Formats: sequence, structure tokens, C-alpha cells
Amino acid sequence: MEVDLTQSINNNLFTINNLWMMIATALVFIMHLGFATLETGLTRSKNTVNILFKNSIIPALGILTYTLWGFNMMYPGESFAGSFFGFSGFGVFTDAEGLTPIYNIGYTYWTDFLFQAMFAATAATIVSGAVAERIKLSSFLIFSTLFVGIVYPVVGMWKWGGGFLNELGFYDFAGSTIVHSVGGWGALTGVVFLGPRLGKFGKNKINPIPGHSMPLAVIGVFLLWLGWFGFNGGSVLSADPGLVSLVLVTTSLAASAGGVSAMISSWMYTKKPDITMVLNGILAGLVGITAGADLMGPLSSIIIGGISGSLVVFSVVFFDKMKLDDPVGAMSVHLVCGIFGTLAVGLFGSKAGLDQLWAQVIGIASTAVFVVISTSLMWYVLKKTMGIRVSELEEVEGLDFGEHAMEAYPEFEKVS
Amino acid sequence: MEVDLTQSINNNLFTINNLWMMIATALVFIMHLGFATLETGLTRSKNTVNILFKNSIIPALGILTYTLWGFNMMYPGESFAGSFFGFSGFGVFTDAEGLTPIYNIGYTYWTDFLFQAMFAATAATIVSGAVAERIKLSSFLIFSTLFVGIVYPVVGMWKWGGGFLNELGFYDFAGSTIVHSVGGWGALTGVVFLGPRLGKFGKNKINPIPGHSMPLAVIGVFLLWLGWFGFNGGSVLSADPGLVSLVLVTTSLAASAGGVSAMISSWMYTKKPDITMVLNGILAGLVGITAGADLMGPLSSIIIGGISGSLVVFSVVFFDKMKLDDPVGAMSVHLVCGIFGTLAVGLFGSKAGLDQLWAQVIGIASTAVFVVISTSLMWYVLKKTMGIRVSELEEVEGLDFGEHAMEAYPEFEKVS
Amino acid sequence: MEVDLTQSINNNLFTINNLWMMIATALVFIMHLGFATLETGLTRSKNTVNILFKNSIIPALGILTYTLWGFNMMYPGESFAGSFFGFSGFGVFTDAEGLTPIYNIGYTYWTDFLFQAMFAATAATIVSGAVAERIKLSSFLIFSTLFVGIVYPVVGMWKWGGGFLNELGFYDFAGSTIVHSVGGWGALTGVVFLGPRLGKFGKNKINPIPGHSMPLAVIGVFLLWLGWFGFNGGSVLSADPGLVSLVLVTTSLAASAGGVSAMISSWMYTKKPDITMVLNGILAGLVGITAGADLMGPLSSIIIGGISGSLVVFSVVFFDKMKLDDPVGAMSVHLVCGIFGTLAVGLFGSKAGLDQLWAQVIGIASTAVFVVISTSLMWYVLKKTMGIRVSELEEVEGLDFGEHAMEAYPEFEKVS
Repeated sequence: MEVDLTQSINNNLFTINNLWMMIATALVFIMHLGFATLETGLTRSKNTVNILFKNSIIPALGILTYTLWGFNMMYPGESFAGSFFGFSGFGVFTDAEGLTPIYNIGYTYWTDFLFQAMFAATAATIVSGAVAERIKLSSFLIFSTLFVGIVYPVVGMWKWGGGFLNELGFYDFAGSTIVHSVGGWGALTGVVFLGPRLGKFGKNKINPIPGHSMPLAVIGVFLLWLGWFGFNGGSVLSADPGLVSLVLVTTSLAASAGGVSAMISSWMYTKKPDITMVLNGILAGLVGITAGADLMGPLSSIIIGGISGSLVVFSVVFFDKMKLDDPVGAMSVHLVCGIFGTLAVGLFGSKAGLDQLWAQVIGIASTAVFVVISTSLMWYVLKKTMGIRVSELEEVEGLDFGEHAMEAYPEFEKVS
Repeated sequence: MEVDLTQSINNNLFTINNLWMMIATALVFIMHLGFATLETGLTRSKNTVNILFKNSIIPALGILTYTLWGFNMMYPGESFAGSFFGFSGFGVFTDAEGLTPIYNIGYTYWTDFLFQAMFAATAATIVSGAVAERIKLSSFLIFSTLFVGIVYPVVGMWKWGGGFLNELGFYDFAGSTIVHSVGGWGALTGVVFLGPRLGKFGKNKINPIPGHSMPLAVIGVFLLWLGWFGFNGGSVLSADPGLVSLVLVTTSLAASAGGVSAMISSWMYTKKPDITMVLNGILAGLVGITAGADLMGPLSSIIIGGISGSLVVFSVVFFDKMKLDDPVGAMSVHLVCGIFGTLAVGLFGSKAGLDQLWAQVIGIASTAVFVVISTSLMWYVLKKTMGIRVSELEEVEGLDFGEHAMEAYPEFEKVS
Repeated sequence: MEVDLTQSINNNLFTINNLWMMIATALVFIMHLGFATLETGLTRSKNTVNILFKNSIIPALGILTYTLWGFNMMYPGESFAGSFFGFSGFGVFTDAEGLTPIYNIGYTYWTDFLFQAMFAATAATIVSGAVAERIKLSSFLIFSTLFVGIVYPVVGMWKWGGGFLNELGFYDFAGSTIVHSVGGWGALTGVVFLGPRLGKFGKNKINPIPGHSMPLAVIGVFLLWLGWFGFNGGSVLSADPGLVSLVLVTTSLAASAGGVSAMISSWMYTKKPDITMVLNGILAGLVGITAGADLMGPLSSIIIGGISGSLVVFSVVFFDKMKLDDPVGAMSVHLVCGIFGTLAVGLFGSKAGLDQLWAQVIGIASTAVFVVISTSLMWYVLKKTMGIRVSELEEVEGLDFGEHAMEAYPEFEKVS
């Protein structure tokens, strides 16, 4: 009887943990809508259908790709092929109970799969923002499929699948490097291979190209903050009360500090409080805290978020000066703050120390090398074969007309 | 003491199950916002206030109607009046504990009621989209109240209230027939009685009437997908880890396959990737999997979603050819894919078989007969008494002006 | 062993309760997006960036302020300084477990803090709507910081921190007074000190200034309703199945009745069904039920919501006649219905009675006195030093240009 009771108690705990992981999955899912509206709001209305199309189909393509092979590459389990690459077969299958006994004791195999699948597609969505308003739809869909299907799972396996970065002591709680900088590096190579939008950089002049809808951008950032409760909170991999609630606090404090810090920095720098900087500051704080959200106290979280919020303001200016055209600031948010957040694990909180800092540097560097090389190769081949950029005429008229023969707002008069 | 411990363990499980059902309720609630923005985005801005009005008041009216008598018609409990109709009195009352001992051991009476009430209003919302841009507000409100208050609970009782379809072995996990095709049949009769929008069908010509805001449509579809986690996941009626997480996986895979399949079908058919088809494809996959979301594995889910996604593309074309004007494609999504999804239970997954297929056909057919007759009667009486269609002048000027004396976007210049 | 089992069972219950409180926190968080889109939708597009800016930075500033001292003022715990004011030190700190043994047995200290922090910022957001379209950004940010940081925690401490209103038997379940009327009084003094928008009141004439986007307003109200599931449901402070599910039912019934009642009242009064009245009616029902959401049955909830929904319609008319210009109706929703809802605890439900009614009156009155005086002082000092209102030119041109040098929709042509 004692055994039965213990079993029932454990079953209850399993049910609770699994419930939280499913809710976290739903929260990460809604980040895709956040990315969609943020990217749409920060770009021009003539490219809106195209951006919405990409952001609607990427989660779908990403989930299917991840089902067919991505999940089994990232978490090879016993079919471990080495520290750098693994694969345990095609398709997602399991027994009737939906439980897997191998590496997962807190939730079902199905929950594990879906939570990871929702994560996977975010990496491609990050790239989407940086290459917006000029990339060819078909090429981007192929890139995204390969990116979610191969690049992301390989790096993910290095850490979360038990690969060499994990063995080395590299720490990345919810993916400042594994998710955000992976997306960020893919964004950077995309921006380099594509070149800037027409008219962005004149002679000694940077022309701002304002986004067409600030409400959509704000909706996006709030949904992303909401989703981050699942992104970071779910990365605890259980409903552990102390740890999950700590993570929600550190996440929210970093987001808040990021927003306030970006407000102050941009207000001082441009003399006007810039809403897009506040929004990117909030996201910067979220990306920054992601690597160590479970290791920090309130003060460290505020410091990390605050630094991230300022970093993003100056990074946006820096990339503009480098003539790297990123319509939504994806590189500043996800790459720069992803790197900073990863380093912050060695600088603040309960794992701070030189050894840890060194492990973090190795993780950042090896991710950089692999993603830059693999995505450059992908962009290069796509450029040489199908082309990656729309024609000048199409870019001027808008991708909505050229790629989709549709308008996002057919009824409203445009300023000419 | 042993007994006390067992009781405490069971209480905990009850609390967990109830918690999931409450969260599922909140998720189904947010589908109403999804329907509102989807329908708004896919129609013209001159009817936007009207559409938002309908979609805001329907959940309110639906919840009240369901409180007063709908719930007690659908779940008559011991006051069972027969296999086709039941009623256990007016109003929703219960003891202080909020528990009902009769048919429900996994969650409280209040949770049960609210989850079902959120479901109920969706049926009327489906109709709303199909009859948009020409229906008289007052008539539609009366129709909706009767539809949510009588038509839906009667059919619901046949299956979920323990009526004749349940006895017959008909299977409809979360309502491909009981919710979606009920709404779809109501939409079809509405479209027939109302006739098409002015200018939709010319001589040998179908004029596309594009929606006025693609971002709103995309927001709608993502919120619906999110809400479906509660719609299908909550239909497990407990937080059972294996079953709920399986359902979330099959739901997401079907949605993804639906979107990708619709993209491919429409791209091949129209030579351009059509965002509205991707959106309807995602919804088609969701409706398609709903009847058997707990019976399918990953592969079956992908197949069902994929077929639904293609079906919706050709169904939209078909209804246009039949001169049945459905501004948002509600009949294609909810009726056609609702029927297909119900049949899929007999074709794929753990219940597949000829006997089951036959039971499914009977369920589909009896629902069709009852809903078509009852809603036709309602439309007919409304048409003969108050009228169901606005005047031609009002339709041309927009329902916002005629019905509400307001504009949705008073500041923006329209393309003339 | 028995002891161990009991401990495990209790740990499980703690984990469940904490899980619900974290989810409620996320739901309250999303209310900030609801307020942002509602306020944006109901105002003019030339002030949209300004409104979005305020609503994006307030949660960030509010959470930080609440971290640094607000939480420790509102919940002084053992460091109780008296019945009217308390403070337990700067900063939020706790032990590694994230549990606090003092006043909280159902969830972690971190969860408690974050749930309360999300609540706190809503008070300032209520003010934001009433003072929109004419207030100086910098002054409003200072006001908000003081309001969230001092005014709200002082009143909160009177009841929820164990102060004199609590000792007196005043009842306010989730904050009809403590949150909504606190925000409402701050809104009223702000409106008085600021004066109406240019052109709102002519000679014997009230000029309606319609909002620029009804879809944004509707998105706002649905997100607020969703968030209220956490606002009220989380105020149970545990996942207690009967009580939380009852609260979700009473909350939804009051919202529904509020919407329907406002529809009927405004339809009868203005001869046209007014979408903004339906939206405010839903919110009115939500505010009205908040004080006694755990004390009412279905019928009382419908009555309270119904009265609130009518009240808001006539209150909007009344404030207009008083030449108190409140662009979004915040005073009608949060102040008037906050007061009514608080009184309703003495009139309906399980605590109804003259003694209770008297305690409610004292709670309402003391809150009124304190908030009106303290915020008047704040507005007065701000007005005399930095000024609280933008210049006439800036108001005419729009705050987006004057305060932010940006446009919310730079591409769309405006009606001139």
C-alpha cells in the first residue's frame, strides 16, 4: 500500500510538471505571433503580406521539419553518433503512454517534442526580420527549412542533446546562444549576402525607413514578453515552485530594466524618447537574461537587463554605420545581447568565475564559427542558383505585389 | 490514516485536473478574439464596426443564454427526457463546494459549465463570418441567441449529453461535427437565405472582394491555433499527461500540415502563394483533426491536416462557383473540413473501421438534417418578419454607418 | 514514513497552487497590452506613439519601483510600522528556496512578488487613459512612478497588507477599490488639473472625438477579460478548485451581463448600438464584480454586471456634462463601477448586510480622501514646476510629433 501511495504521489507530480510544460509550450507558440506583428509593424506596408506569409508558414514548416528529423538530430538519446552530431531516425514515434524512459522524467515524450519544436522555429523567425523587405520568398523558405532542420538542431545537440559544449561546462539555460545568437548569426550572414534595402544608405547618409504601424510593433513585444515566461520558465523542465518563479522574476526584471535603460540611453542620445528603442530594449533584456535566468538574483537581473537595454541602442547605431541593414534590429537584439547574456553567466550570479567565462567564450565562438560557415554556404548556393533577392522593380513596388499579387491594406490611401 | 492520505492524493489530482480545465477554458475564450480579428481582417473596413460588434456581444449573449437554459439542455444529467432532447431546469445552481457528483469526477461543476459555455458561443461565431457584410444586426442577434441557446445544445446533447448518437457509437472528440459542422450548416443556410453581397457575382464572373487588413487576419489565426490547445486539449476533460500532450501534438501537426498543404495547393493553382489560403489551411487542419485528435498518431495527423488544407482551397473555389458567397471561407473551413474530420475517425487512427465510419456518417447526416431544417426555419421566419438583410444603400455605404452610425477608422483616407 | 508521505502530498499541493499563481501572473501581465491597445484604439492616431510609449514603459517602471520599495511598503510583514504605513526595507530578497514563511503558505515569495507587481502597474495605466492626448510625457512618468510606488502600496497595505481597513472588516476581494478606484481617483484629479482636450467642449456643445481604430479597442477589451481570469482568479491565492472556478464563472457572467446591459442602455438612449459602450460595459461588469467575485452566485453576478453595464453608459454622459474630459471612459469604468462593485459586497452575496455595507463605505471614503489629496498634491507640484500639459501647438499637431518626433502610421493618408 505504501508503494501504491508513493506511486500515486509521484504520478501527481508528473502530471503537474507535464501541465506546466504544456502551458509553457503554448506560451512559446504565441511568440510566433509576437515576431509576426513586431516585424510587420517595423517595416513598410508594401511588404506586409510577405512578412506575414513568412511568419505564418515558418512555424508550420518548422514543426513538420522538426517532427521528421530535427528532434531526432537534436536529442539523439542512445543513438548518439558523437559529440558533434547525432541522429536517432526519421519521424516522431512513441509508445501508447506517451512517456519516454530515456532522458526525461518530468513530462511526456509528446510534451518534450512539442516544447522543443516551438523553440526550433523561433531561430528562423529571427532571421526573417533581418532580411525583410528584399528577400525572395522561395529562397527564404528553403533557407528556413534547412536552418530549422539542420543548423539549429546541430548546435542545440552540442549543449542540450549532451554534446561537446555540455561536456565542457558551457552554460546556456534557455538559449541566449543556442537559440538567439544562432538566429542572430544567420541574420548577419543573410544581411551580408543580401545587401541593404534600396535607398537605406546614401552617400555619407543613413536614411531611416520607419515602420508602418507602431501598434503592431507593441503588440509584438508584449506577446514576446508573455511568451518568454514559457521560453525561460519552461526551460526549468519542471514546475519546481522556487526555480520557475525565480526565473519568471529574473526574466521580468531584466525586461523592465532593458526597457527603462533603452529609454534613457536613446533619450539622451537622440533627445527624443524613441518607442522602437524601448521595445527593442525590453527584448534585449529578455535575450540577455535568457542564458542565466535561473542563476541570477533580482539585482543581477536588473544589471544584466540594464546593460542589454543600452547595448541594443548603440548596437543599432553601430550596424547602421557598418552599412548592415537590419530593418527590425534583430542582430542587435538577438546576436549582440545573446552574446552578452551568455557572457553574463560568467560575470554575475551563482556560476560567475573565470573558468565559467572561458567555457562561455568557447560556446559563443564555436556557435559563431559553425553558424556563420554553414549559413554562408546556404546563402551562397541559393544566391548562385535561385537568387536570394527580388528585382529592383519588385523591391520598389513592394514584395506584396511581386511575390503575392496582394495588398495588406487594399482600402487605405498611401502617402505618396 | 491511509484513507486520509488517499483522500489527500485524490484531492490533489482533482485540483490539477480542474486547473487544466480552467486554463483550457481561458484558451477557448480567446478564440472569440481570434474569430473577431480574422473576420474583421478578411472583410471591408466599412463593415468593421458591425463585425466587431457582433463578435463582442455574441460571447456575452451566448454565455448568458447558456447559463439560463443551454447548459441544462445539453447536459440534462438525471433529468434526461429522452435520447433526442433533455432539460434539467432554468439557471445554473450548485452547492457551496462547486462540485457535482453526477457525471463529472475530474473538475468542478463551475469549471464544467464555463468550459462548455465558451464552446457554445463559437458555433454562432462561425455563422457570423459567412453572413458578414450584409446581415441585419438585430436579426443576427436573435438568430445567434436561438442558435447558441437551442440548436447547438440539442445536437450537443445527442453526443456529449449522452443522447442517441453517443449510444450509437458516433465519435467526435472535440467537435468537428458537434461544434464546427453545426456552425457550418448554420452558415450555409444563412448564405442561401441572404444571397451574395452586392457585386460579388457578375455575369460569368466572380469578383474577389479582398479583406482590408491582413495583420488582423493573421492575429486571428494564431489566436485560434492557441485557443485550439484548450479546445482540443481541454476536451480530454482531465490533465492526463499522455493524452493531453498527445492531443496538443496531433493538433499542432494537423495545423502545420494544413498550412503547408494549402500553400502548395494554392501556389500550384493560382501561381502565387496566397496568405489567406495559408491561414484557412491552418484552420482547416485544426478543424479536421478535432474529431479524432486523441486517436491519431503523428503520421495520421499530418495526413488529415494535409488533406484538410487542400480541401479548403478547392472548397473555396467550389462555393464561389456555386455562387454561395462566404466572405471568410467559414463553410469551407468549418463545414467541409468538419465533415472530413469526422469521417477521418473511421479512416485513420485507433478507431478506424467500417462500423465506425458508418456511425460517423449517421452523426454527420443527422446533424445536417436537424441543423439545416431548424436554421432554415429560423432564417425564414426572421426574413418574413423583421427582414434579415440590410438595404442596398446601407450595404453600399457600409453597415458601420447604417447600423451603428460610426466608423472603425474615421481618420484614414480610403482609396476611392 | 507517514510523515514523509504527508510532506510529499503537501509539496505537490504547494506546487499546484504556485503553478496557478504564476499563470495568473502571466494573465495579469497581458492586461497591460489590453490597456495599451484599448487606449490607443479609443484615441486619435496623432497621439498613438505617445500612448503606446506610456503603456509600454509603465509596466517596466512599475515593476522596478515595486521591486525597490513598493512591495515592501504594501506587505511590510513583521516590520509593521502601524495600521496606516509600513516598510520592511529596500529591495526584494529571499532565501534560496524562494519560500517565505511569514504570511504566505500557498506559493513562493517570488510568485507573490511578481503577481503583486503586475497588479501594481495597472493602477497607473488606468490614469493613463483618462489623461491621454494632452499630458506631458515626462511629468506623467514621474507621476506614475510615485503613484505605483507610493499611493497604490499605501492603500493596498491598508487592506491586503493587514492595515486598518482589514481590521475594520472592509472587504475587497481583488481590488474594485484597492486597484480600480485608486486608479479612478488618480484619473479624476488628473482630468481636473489638466482640463479637457482642445475642442472637446464648445459653447453648450459636447464634441465627440472618436477613436481611430475600433479593432485595437476590441483587442484591448478581450485581452482585459482574459487577464481578469488571472486578476480575480489569482486573487484566490491558491488553486482551490471550487473557489477559483466559481470566481471565473462570476467574473465571466458579470462581464457578459455588463456588455449586454450597456448594449441595451445605449441602444435605447442613442437609438444606435454603440460598440464603445459594449466594450466599456464588459469592462464595467468586470470592475463591478471584482470586489466580491468570490462571494456571489450566478444570479448576483449577472445583476451586478448588469447594473455596472448601465451605470457606465450614464456615467460617460454625466462626466461629459460635467466637462470632465476622459478620452477612454476610465473614470466611468474604474471609479464609478469600482465604487459600485465595492458597495455590492454589502448588497448581494454571502456577506450582504448593513454592517458590511458600512465597512465598505468607510473603505471607499478613506481611499477617496487619501488618493484625491495625495494625487492632487502631486499634480499641483508637477504643474507648478515642470508643467503637466503640452503646448496648444503640440496638442493640435499631436503628441507623437512633439514628444517623440515620430508617427505611428507614417504611410497612411489622413482625412483632412
